[in-house]
Amino acid sequence: MDRDRILLTPGPLTTTLRTKLAMLKDWGSWDADFNALTASVRHRLLDIVHGHETHVVVPLQGSGTFSVEAAVATVVPRDGHVLVLDNGAYCKRAARLTEMMGRRASVMAFGEEEPVSAAALDARLKAVGSITHVILIHCETGTGVENPLAEVATVCEKHGKGLIVDAMSSFGALPIDARSTRFDALIAASGKCLEGVPGMGFVFIRRAILDGCAGNSQSLAMDLHDQHVYMGKTGQWRFTPPTHVVAALSEAITQFVEEGGQPARLARYADNCRVLIDGMAAIGFKPFLRPEVQAPVIVTFHAPAHPAYDFKTFYEGAKARGFMLYPGKLTQVETFRVGCIGSLGRHEMRQAVEAVADTLREMGIPGGEPHVGA
Amino acid sequence: MDRDRILLTPGPLTTTLRTKLAMLKDWGSWDADFNALTASVRHRLLDIVHGHETHVVVPLQGSGTFSVEAAVATVVPRDGHVLVLDNGAYCKRAARLTEMMGRRASVMAFGEEEPVSAAALDARLKAVGSITHVILIHCETGTGVENPLAEVATVCEKHGKGLIVDAMSSFGALPIDARSTRFDALIAASGKCLEGVPGMGFVFIRRAILDGCAGNSQSLAMDLHDQHVYMGKTGQWRFTPPTHVVAALSEAITQFVEEGGQPARLARYADNCRVLIDGMAAIGFKPFLRPEVQAPVIVTFHAPAHPAYDFKTFYEGAKARGFMLYPGKLTQVETFRVGCIGSLGRHEMRQAVEAVADTLREMGIPGGEPHVGA
Repeated sequence: MDRDRILLTPGPLTTTLRTKLAMLKDWGSWDADFNALTASVRHRLLDIVHGHETHVVVPLQGSGTFSVEAAVATVVPRDGHVLVLDNGAYCKRAARLTEMMGRRASVMAFGEEEPVSAAALDARLKAVGSITHVILIHCETGTGVENPLAEVATVCEKHGKGLIVDAMSSFGALPIDARSTRFDALIAASGKCLEGVPGMGFVFIRRAILDGCAGNSQSLAMDLHDQHVYMGKTGQWRFTPPTHVVAALSEAITQFVEEGGQPARLARYADNCRVLIDGMAAIGFKPFLRPEVQAPVIVTFHAPAHPAYDFKTFYEGAKARGFMLYPGKLTQVETFRVGCIGSLGRHEMRQAVEAVADTLREMGIPGGEPHVGA
Repeated sequence: MDRDRILLTPGPLTTTLRTKLAMLKDWGSWDADFNALTASVRHRLLDIVHGHETHVVVPLQGSGTFSVEAAVATVVPRDGHVLVLDNGAYCKRAARLTEMMGRRASVMAFGEEEPVSAAALDARLKAVGSITHVILIHCETGTGVENPLAEVATVCEKHGKGLIVDAMSSFGALPIDARSTRFDALIAASGKCLEGVPGMGFVFIRRAILDGCAGNSQSLAMDLHDQHVYMGKTGQWRFTPPTHVVAALSEAITQFVEEGGQPARLARYADNCRVLIDGMAAIGFKPFLRPEVQAPVIVTFHAPAHPAYDFKTFYEGAKARGFMLYPGKLTQVETFRVGCIGSLGRHEMRQAVEAVADTLREMGIPGGEPHVGA
């Protein structure tokens, strides 16, 4: 039937009807009412990280990756040297965009199934003095692994290095406290754990480094310093804002606060993740990650070993039953991913497992057991 | 009263309820249904410029300015030399973003009240051999002046120079025909004359130059060649698309076609513009531009000379009556602007003039007559 499906994806995700209804109004982007909306969103974003004393937050049009690129372009001077802690696809993307803009980038490789190591970073920073900034992906969506933000921040602070955190899939769900965790820039986006719609990102920038960021960016569109100065002067975005997306984000943040903020959201997502993994385990599926390093955001499962399995049929079967899965992003191992985030709870997760089980039956696959050794 | 106002602004603008209702669904950005939506939007955008034979169209997240920057970054090689035909604020912005990314940029200055001159461009291209690309703003929204696209394209073709056209506020309203007008890149956005919501742009790129664009961009996010190649391979956007904005644009294009396409839209906007200028003239207001060079998109009016006039009070008065005006963007002359575009017709334009007249009365201003000599 033609009904709206539940998105088990890492963003865009399923939003509430209330959030979507906030888009049924056209805002004048120059108008004081819209400026107030922008200011309110910025204020409440700073609330979430307890960042009013230490940081500003600068919204930016475009996808989350645009904001990651903008953060690097704005925060890292042209002669800077960036070290990317790499345990997945989004880390590699951060390294690529850093190199493309002409900044020196080094990559420190870790296994995809493990968090990056703060101790290894400590040793590297001792050995290579030229490094000025470290890039960390908080939750690497390629696998769903949670990286040790607090520990990495401590090491960076100890060595006096700047830290850029891609918190795209963790912001709003995992705890981040700017009062105790020092970062130069931290990036997230509207359409992830805040449960808004996609179309804008935002970057927290440490006040202490803000003035020094002037002139770093070679891109006008991505110059967050310029965006921040202009917003401070006028209350407006420099270039046409995605007004409906901003309105939806504002409404989504209101519901986030009503739910109980980050702790409540984490509790719901953690419950979603547990129900999902337990349910999938009961029909034979095995997660790619150890439970201790799994963030409750997106779960990578090994593909079933059964010869009748192929992802496309599996995906279409689950979709026909109302649930949208997500493909794997690993090159060595065949996997698929299931998101735990968005406007959904344990009932939806149980029904998703049911849909998966039913799809397997239809495909003639007795269970989700992966290849031996997976 | 708390009612939705009519936006007399150059985008974001007033959209139909039908367009906004298209945003009440969450799409999976990886899903085949969304890929089909993207493909359909791209196909119908090419229809509008008759560009299937000669051009591809690449959508991009972010505001229209992001797409302008992306077009320059993608189309102009690193050792290119760009000449910007400058008769307004958006021209200056194009020059600035070109210089920031490290491309050589020269500016050819014209008066703000006149179109740029194709003959003067011809002479300049004869004199300065190093120029590789010309940037033209089709309708310079700073004043509302229409620039001679066809003539400029002919001159560029004659000299073998690339042409980049910012058609942000003209696309969909003014005629643009890729079969007879040669351009390397032409840029517009969702939230302008197609009457979608803001949040994405799109760039038409000439097929003949497309392969040569690989590797030009120093920005990953803004690399339209990469975006195009990836879309060709997967049907997907490289990075999270603004799914709701894309859905709204698709619905807006459907209504655009139903209305009768570009000729019908031009006719409606031209009628809006005429009704507006005639109505405003009847209460003393004088447009900044001569009628022959005025595009039916946005009209710049001189501010009233009366000492009781100030823009903020004037704006608030019109807003209280349900109409959102737009500030002027000229530095030398005090002006304000009124858009003719969006989901509105002659009734709304007449009511807008009534609201302006009523506001003047409230401000104790007998008429909109500007300073002598304006």
